[in-house]
Amino acid sequence: MENLTISNLPTSVLLDLQTGIFDPAQKVDSRRLSDLAAVYHDQNAVQEILRSEDRLVYEIRYHAFITSNSDMALGVTRIYPGKIGDEYHMTKGHFHLREDQPEIYFCVQGEGYLLMETREGEFQAVAWKPGVITHIPPAWAHRVVNTGDQVLYFVASYHVSAGHVYEPIVERGFSKVVVEREGRPILAPNPRRLR
Amino acid sequence: MENLTISNLPTSVLLDLQTGIFDPAQKVDSRRLSDLAAVYHDQNAVQEILRSEDRLVYEIRYHAFITSNSDMALGVTRIYPGKIGDEYHMTKGHFHLREDQPEIYFCVQGEGYLLMETREGEFQAVAWKPGVITHIPPAWAHRVVNTGDQVLYFVASYHVSAGHVYEPIVERGFSKVVVEREGRPILAPNPRRLR
Repeated sequence: MENLTISNLPTSVLLDLQTGIFDPAQKVDSRRLSDLAAVYHDQNAVQEILRSEDRLVYEIRYHAFITSNSDMALGVTRIYPGKIGDEYHMTKGHFHLREDQPEIYFCVQGEGYLLMETREGEFQAVAWKPGVITHIPPAWAHRVVNTGDQVLYFVASYHVSAGHVYEPIVERGFSKVVVEREGRPILAPNPRRLR
Repeated sequence: MENLTISNLPTSVLLDLQTGIFDPAQKVDSRRLSDLAAVYHDQNAVQEILRSEDRLVYEIRYHAFITSNSDMALGVTRIYPGKIGDEYHMTKGHFHLREDQPEIYFCVQGEGYLLMETREGEFQAVAWKPGVITHIPPAWAHRVVNTGDQVLYFVASYHVSAGHVYEPIVERGFSKVVVEREGRPILAPNPRRLR
């Protein structure tokens, strides 16, 4: 978060429950395919799409509630429906920098999977639908995949000081990928780890 | 939280978005009028209702996600519609024991007010409707009031170590009460503070 304004007053935002857009947001990150190219397993599909469009895959609205002595934050991520080759649209995925920082994710709309994995390779996938609320313990990387045909959005609660570490995920991905087979999403072994 | 099971694995619960009930909940607190009698300004109305029924005013479902080194928690509170005399159903209200612990509240269904106040008497009321997400800074007491005709429910994210302090609110209330006048909710000076 670049903009750490300190306020000790209550702050409210309004989340449009239909769209998943909240206002005011301190920051909006738009992640296009060019920002995410390395995370998809089918690099031919990535390049093919990039030749015609730099597709918007997801966006995150943030509000960090920084007070004199606390740093709780809100994030709402909207993942557009779609695939890159056979792999569904998904977030980049990250570990927290601090190893004592968990996060709560609340799926409000859409369907898909929350993938989680430790550095030691313990893996879990949670089938997500509206109403699923997941606690992601410290030291578990996390990624959300949209397997539906509408926007999937979820509300996240965390601390700004948690920090983000993307590199291990960009380099190796998760144990499994979520890909379409015969018109349905399945979890398959990550081809990049089999090479 | 009595039951602090430590788990370092991801945990999910399913929130029924229609009812606000999530499962599994580690603990459910049901607050009846007899538990809350002291917080309403019209003690005659309290006693009158208690002679015929010990009305269920609200209930809270909790899940504390205790890991080896973190303690994030989820709570969902469902406030039934109704009034005690002219005062709308509301939560007991509390400060946090720790003065460095904020909380995020997300109103998913219903309408009403979130009341907040510091020990120094600074007061704020936020009109609540579905989609309003409020950050309650440390050191602000908080209470939710249901002024609608359906269940109001909200999702809370906090830390178990925050703790609760109820006494100052039970003794003095907030600066204002939310009461019905000519069929509509208004904020009025707290009669207990005028005595």
